[in-house]
Amino acid sequence: MEQVSANRAFGGVQGVYRHASAVTGTDMTFSIYVPPHEAGARLPVVWYLSGLTCTHANVTEKGEFRAVCAELGLILVAPDTSPRGEGVPDDPAGAYDFGLGAGFYVDATEAPYAANYRMWSYVTEELPALVAEHFPADMARQSIMGHSMGGHGALTIGLCFPDRYKAISAFAPIVAPGQVPWGEKALTFYLGSDRAAWRKHDAVALIEDGARVPALLVDQGGADQFLEEQLRPELLAAACGKAGIDLTLRMQPGYDHSYYCIATFMADHLRWHAERLEWPRTK
Amino acid sequence: MEQVSANRAFGGVQGVYRHASAVTGTDMTFSIYVPPHEAGARLPVVWYLSGLTCTHANVTEKGEFRAVCAELGLILVAPDTSPRGEGVPDDPAGAYDFGLGAGFYVDATEAPYAANYRMWSYVTEELPALVAEHFPADMARQSIMGHSMGGHGALTIGLCFPDRYKAISAFAPIVAPGQVPWGEKALTFYLGSDRAAWRKHDAVALIEDGARVPALLVDQGGADQFLEEQLRPELLAAACGKAGIDLTLRMQPGYDHSYYCIATFMADHLRWHAERLEWPRTK
Repeated sequence: MEQVSANRAFGGVQGVYRHASAVTGTDMTFSIYVPPHEAGARLPVVWYLSGLTCTHANVTEKGEFRAVCAELGLILVAPDTSPRGEGVPDDPAGAYDFGLGAGFYVDATEAPYAANYRMWSYVTEELPALVAEHFPADMARQSIMGHSMGGHGALTIGLCFPDRYKAISAFAPIVAPGQVPWGEKALTFYLGSDRAAWRKHDAVALIEDGARVPALLVDQGGADQFLEEQLRPELLAAACGKAGIDLTLRMQPGYDHSYYCIATFMADHLRWHAERLEWPRTK
Repeated sequence: MEQVSANRAFGGVQGVYRHASAVTGTDMTFSIYVPPHEAGARLPVVWYLSGLTCTHANVTEKGEFRAVCAELGLILVAPDTSPRGEGVPDDPAGAYDFGLGAGFYVDATEAPYAANYRMWSYVTEELPALVAEHFPADMARQSIMGHSMGGHGALTIGLCFPDRYKAISAFAPIVAPGQVPWGEKALTFYLGSDRAAWRKHDAVALIEDGARVPALLVDQGGADQFLEEQLRPELLAAACGKAGIDLTLRMQPGYDHSYYCIATFMADHLRWHAERLEWPRTK
């Protein structure tokens, strides 16, 4: 693992690292903020999954998470959104919503994507092992959040591992990829045309199929340009309502799909995570 | 004046605007954050001047100022760092430290720069008039801060207009451009080789020549790569000491020259400004 950069910030260190991934067959880059802490301490890990076109850098530069992570003592890890590099197949037409920057947090089963596009295993297995090995992480206290496509990733991963992730939240998530254009395109390319295989990668379908978590927090901008066609939070609200999942869905008037919205509500999410991570211990 | 973008953030609006500048003879772009406020209210204006290579975008994306500006009710304006566009002369060798992105907040007197490089007049006259006209700004309550070259700008402008700017602070400023390579190069190109003309654009020289303000706040990273050769805060400390200016110079161990340092201490600076702006009024 190679350190790309390390910057002192809010008393801790914002690091960026690169490593050869056995899972994706490519080099992968991620960022990790380690807040100030006592020697020997182990800190909870908040996973932040990014949206279409993003790398680790977007939230690292614009997410405004460090002040609260430093205050509460939370590590925040931001993976990339897809494998990258020579030989990694992209969208056939070079579109932004599939391929590079658009891994959708699945393990692809279809050629030519199956070899590299294994973001599900990367985010749930390989990268956690690396973080546990190299950083002062308490892997018994993990939580997960994300934005847009990364909100989809956070919801689906969180719903599949309810014991591992003590809190799950999202900003403007794709809640039902099987029912919206972004998701239908990506899941067809990655998983094939049999929609039964998509249900594990669709938060609404997972809940319909019985997945349960105690609570979810979602902030959704009311002026988000993707709200009606791609995001459709009402589908999540309906599924949670039927399943008895305590969803807090906050519609935020005037907010759009950008990091200005994420940054505004980041502190609320981190405090909500910290409560469920029962951290700091002294609380 | 044309609106380039407007994003809801922390209850207010982060705007970016473009206008034809009579002063620089070019289009100029700036960002302005207007926090939530009651209809009819007039709010203090904090000027943020950026460093070498920056545009308005760097602090707008990475400065983490909006949460505190929203809390305190402060407008923050971030101008560009130079004129730009076809026909604007750049560094003869295309270097980063002069010309485009490096206006040094002076009105150039030397050819070929004198026609466009008039950032002193732009920042102290033209842009304030535009802000006063179009935004809910209380121009009787202004303050100024900046980073690196922009810290130089904030200090020199603040020292020249002590009645106008109620607070002056800087992150890692160039405090004595007449004594360091960045400044010697730029001031020679912009103002010519007569060093007497440089003294109005050198914070240490201004103080030596009698400029007085009640107080200054400076944060300086101890691991800043430019500390010893270009920034030299000890020269400001010595000048303030002799002049009886209440300088708070905070050396911050481990911090570098990046926006990770600025963001870490931004809230401290804004609160320090708000105190001196006597804002909010209810305090």
